[in-house]
Amino acid sequence: MKTVSEQKVIQYRGTKLNTKGWQQEAALRMLMNNLDPDVAERPEDLVVYGGIGKAARNWESFDAIVKSLKELENDETLMVQSGKPVAIFKTHENAPRVLIANSNIVPAYANWETFHDLDKKGLMMYGQMTAGSWIYIGSQGIVQGTYETFVELAKQHFGESLKGTITLTAGLGGMGGAQPLAVTMAGGVCIGIEVDETRIDRRIATRYTDVKTDSLDEAIRLAEEARGEGRALSIGLLGNAADMLPEMIERGFMPDVLTDQTSAHDPLNGYIPSKMSLEDAAALREREPAGYVKLSKASMAQHVRAMLEMQKKGAITFDYGNNIRQVAKDEGVENAFDFPGFVPAYIRPQFCEGKGPFRWVALSGDPEDIRKTDEVILREFSYNTHLCNWIKMAQEKIQFQGLPARICWLGYGERARFGKIINDMVASGELSAPIVIGRDHLDSGSVASPNRETESMKDGSDVVADWPILNAMVNAVGGATWISLHHGGGVGMGYSIHSGMVIVADGTKDAEARIQRVLTTDPGMGVARHVDAGYEIAENTAREKGVNIPMMKGGNPQND
Amino acid sequence: MKTVSEQKVIQYRGTKLNTKGWQQEAALRMLMNNLDPDVAERPEDLVVYGGIGKAARNWESFDAIVKSLKELENDETLMVQSGKPVAIFKTHENAPRVLIANSNIVPAYANWETFHDLDKKGLMMYGQMTAGSWIYIGSQGIVQGTYETFVELAKQHFGESLKGTITLTAGLGGMGGAQPLAVTMAGGVCIGIEVDETRIDRRIATRYTDVKTDSLDEAIRLAEEARGEGRALSIGLLGNAADMLPEMIERGFMPDVLTDQTSAHDPLNGYIPSKMSLEDAAALREREPAGYVKLSKASMAQHVRAMLEMQKKGAITFDYGNNIRQVAKDEGVENAFDFPGFVPAYIRPQFCEGKGPFRWVALSGDPEDIRKTDEVILREFSYNTHLCNWIKMAQEKIQFQGLPARICWLGYGERARFGKIINDMVASGELSAPIVIGRDHLDSGSVASPNRETESMKDGSDVVADWPILNAMVNAVGGATWISLHHGGGVGMGYSIHSGMVIVADGTKDAEARIQRVLTTDPGMGVARHVDAGYEIAENTAREKGVNIPMMKGGNPQND
Ligand SMILES: NC(=O)c1ccc[n+]([C@@H]2O[C@H](COP(=O)([O-])OP(=O)(O)OC[C@H]3O[C@@H](n4cnc5c(N)ncnc54)[C@H](O)[C@@H]3O)[C@@H](O)[C@H]2O)c1
Ligand SMILES: NC(=O)c1ccc[n+]([C@@H]2O[C@H](COP(=O)([O-])OP(=O)(O)OC[C@H]3O[C@@H](n4cnc5c(N)ncnc54)[C@H](O)[C@@H]3O)[C@@H](O)[C@H]2O)c1
Repeated sequence: MKTVSEQKVIQYRGTKLNTKGWQQEAALRMLMNNLDPDVAERPEDLVVYGGIGKAARNWESFDAIVKSLKELENDETLMVQSGKPVAIFKTHENAPRVLIANSNIVPAYANWETFHDLDKKGLMMYGQMTAGSWIYIGSQGIVQGTYETFVELAKQHFGESLKGTITLTAGLGGMGGAQPLAVTMAGGVCIGIEVDETRIDRRIATRYTDVKTDSLDEAIRLAEEARGEGRALSIGLLGNAADMLPEMIERGFMPDVLTDQTSAHDPLNGYIPSKMSLEDAAALREREPAGYVKLSKASMAQHVRAMLEMQKKGAITFDYGNNIRQVAKDEGVENAFDFPGFVPAYIRPQFCEGKGPFRWVALSGDPEDIRKTDEVILREFSYNTHLCNWIKMAQEKIQFQGLPARICWLGYGERARFGKIINDMVASGELSAPIVIGRDHLDSGSVASPNRETESMKDGSDVVADWPILNAMVNAVGGATWISLHHGGGVGMGYSIHSGMVIVADGTKDAEARIQRVLTTDPGMGVARHVDAGYEIAENTAREKGVNIPMMKGGNPQND
Repeated sequence: MKTVSEQKVIQYRGTKLNTKGWQQEAALRMLMNNLDPDVAERPEDLVVYGGIGKAARNWESFDAIVKSLKELENDETLMVQSGKPVAIFKTHENAPRVLIANSNIVPAYANWETFHDLDKKGLMMYGQMTAGSWIYIGSQGIVQGTYETFVELAKQHFGESLKGTITLTAGLGGMGGAQPLAVTMAGGVCIGIEVDETRIDRRIATRYTDVKTDSLDEAIRLAEEARGEGRALSIGLLGNAADMLPEMIERGFMPDVLTDQTSAHDPLNGYIPSKMSLEDAAALREREPAGYVKLSKASMAQHVRAMLEMQKKGAITFDYGNNIRQVAKDEGVENAFDFPGFVPAYIRPQFCEGKGPFRWVALSGDPEDIRKTDEVILREFSYNTHLCNWIKMAQEKIQFQGLPARICWLGYGERARFGKIINDMVASGELSAPIVIGRDHLDSGSVASPNRETESMKDGSDVVADWPILNAMVNAVGGATWISLHHGGGVGMGYSIHSGMVIVADGTKDAEARIQRVLTTDPGMGVARHVDAGYEIAENTAREKGVNIPMMKGGNPQND
């Protein structure tokens, strides 16, 4: 017998429409793609990634979304509230086809307890970032971001690459699974601790991880050998990070780089407590959620304490965006924030230029379409060696999951230019079907998250959440195909507000105008946000590109 | 010498543009109107109403907004972040001219302490509802809402009107000042306790209040006499509510109806502690804000305790949207929520039909323009006696403040119809200049505020904040002239998320299309939100009007 998701999730390919237009079709195919068994972590439960990040609230809502998208006219807009379709309005042809708001809770109540209560009542779902906004593309979506982080770290601390270093991390889930591949791409050795063996197997099957072991000794031996030889290698180590780290310290093992990507942002569904089997964890979670959360948080404190100790002994340590420091701090680990987050440490300069994890997907399903766009990058952006190297490496090492897709970090100006080229290629028939262009919510101007993307802002504006809201509104106005505003992604309930954006290049002149607008305003908000916070790189970008910022110090760049 | 606001705030009137189009002009005139000394409570500090609800972050930001609006092209959009202009983007002619996000804070930090800290650093302002979104029209904006509330209360408890009853309330500020007028309009007697004599004087000058006294005995005598004679009368009583209520109880005085509209939502700037002069309060607020807040909250607890006691003795008691119950509860008044909020008690049925405080403003400054629109209401909506009575009464009793304006509660269908008529009247030259159409953030589908607009929702979805976000996005997409998304309005930091909408009827065909869209989606979200929560009136409205709601139980009304 077929499972529910096997019955309902259909992977549409090719050039035949199942809807009344390519914009609706794109939403439909990307929703399905988010739940493709090769892409999603637990499609049966509608879970895409990131603990319980879902694509639709429940299967009835999923059915209703699919039906709505199939019936949706070219001048209508579907409203989705936490994964449920709640209204369809007549708007206009250049308007978004879908508007999405996920997991937003009135702030005084914005915590996991209230969320779980609403979830149980069927009133809400957790959208995480790209899960509820239908632009998740599997681990491939995060690889470059992870790679950029490690390369920047290498530059700051080791010279050119990670060659001859060991990176220790944990969590090989949907996003975390990109770490072993990114580390080896950067020339280093990676030990990735993961408590769920099926996750390790999956990373090995997709060549994101090289070898697996359940022996700590073996993992250390393999890693040290490879480090000695300057050889890249990634090792999936079966175990619980909260237990493994203290044991490593005891045995005197020291990594050069240390981080973590367990789903610590979600203590109930994302983190397995110390010394507990997966089965016991599942049973306890069901039986006594409050007790589970208590154990889980205590384990995170233990985990962070070990990280702090390794840091003190010399490991370059950073938080990788899962809010584990906050939990540890709440649990009494006073100095939990002694190690920095990855954004202020390695990524912010890119945000200042409007750069972020730009991505595109071939709706045809044909890998050839992506190959052709790769070539465009190599030709049109040849001045950017780093980017071109990335594309070549990606072609070689990254397996597609679901619809063929590519990711690369592009900034203000570049995005709009590349978007137009893609649209022209669709128009001329060079590509076999329209292309979907989008990005992560983790981006230059799309997120307020004081323990992650907006940690340690220069002007102290870490918690100001106006920016992602303006970002969502201006992209919606410009005619993105779907737009989303979420709460709690990445770092959990209470800790972030962020917006997503997806736009379809269908080769029409209308699409060209929309792409021009949206791919300018979207990174433009990032530049403006960082100008406002006082970052010089952002000011230079604004000046160079003539961004219109009324109160920029030294004068509005547009009038230069 | 002229004050800052006298120098900067210019009241533009007539048909000559100071900008490049009527949409920009409307934003400019409404910004100025919000700060008109006849409209705003403290224009010198940019404070419009509601404690410290402001129109712009500071005077530099104000200047930059004015300059930006004057330069703004007809296909550009100005981005305003908590009262500061942060970017201008090329969008398109049917896009909003301004997008606004005010006072939004990442939820885990969304409290007054963080706000004040950001405010002090110059990074934020409090937008309240219509203050930061440039559609405040003075006390006239709230009169009908207040009147509707009291009439519904009268119907439920006393028959037809408030004749022969005394309503006791406090706070005669920008909004609260509407209470005495609304009560007398409904035939009753009103005692309004107000601690600031200048506020009482203002209400008397504008005929919102009949008489003033600083003697409790006199107030009681006047009120009881009028009640006995069935005569309408409003009395401004100088004093502090936290002290006056217990004293009234002591003297055995009992009102028939009891509520409160001090700015309890803002303990630092909106509420004067018991037994304290205004001068001492101002000094303490400056010198020791934390100590002030402590006293202020304790006084609110005392105030609510007295309200509960009067309720027990038979007064019909309700919370009037200032979050005073929450503060009292946090201060240990366990049963603070024993009296209901005004929305579930009296207003929700209207929200279910997409009804709310719809308003329009004559940009010409000519009262004749409003008179003509009044006539349209009397002619086109003659089937609605209640509404027509309201218009006649408003013509007679409500003085204009600033630009001539009118308010009346209209629902789904009616709003779009009336909007088109207005636009036609502008087109034909019947009205002397374009009209601005807008509404309060307190509306059918525009707000999540569990102690106010979404208190006690049938399905328990009080704290779900996806709705106002969808509302803002769809109105922006439809082409409202400016759109805002705020946090903390009405009930203070942490307790609400809400969106505003303003659209200009300039007589063009483009405006007609935008009006049709926006004045449908805006109340449409209200209908959908209440359908989703399971309200029958909303289901009936959806069915009658054919609103497209994919998962409505009993089937999508559109397919009927
Ligand atoms: N920095 C970034 O760019 C970025 C991007 C995406 C996600 N994240 C964050 O990274 C985290 C992981 O995201 P994901 O999508 O991979 O989540 P996921 O839920 O798919 O994977 C989490 C993995 O951690 C494992 N795990 C849980 N507890 C463990 C423990 N105690 N020891 C070892 N393994 C354990 C789980 O078995 C699972 O495989 C999330 O918190 C997410 O928000 C960061
Ligand atoms: N229910 C609604 O429809 C609605 C609409 C708007 C505003 N409100 C709420 O009503 C409240 C009042 O709004 P506003 O715009 O009139 O605010 P405001 O700040 O202009 O006026 C508040 C008034 O209360 C007075 N006051 C403060 N402490 C007092 C005390 N202890 N005793 C007597 N008087 C005292 C102040 O002097 C001031 O005049 C706010 O909390 C607001 O959010 C409700």
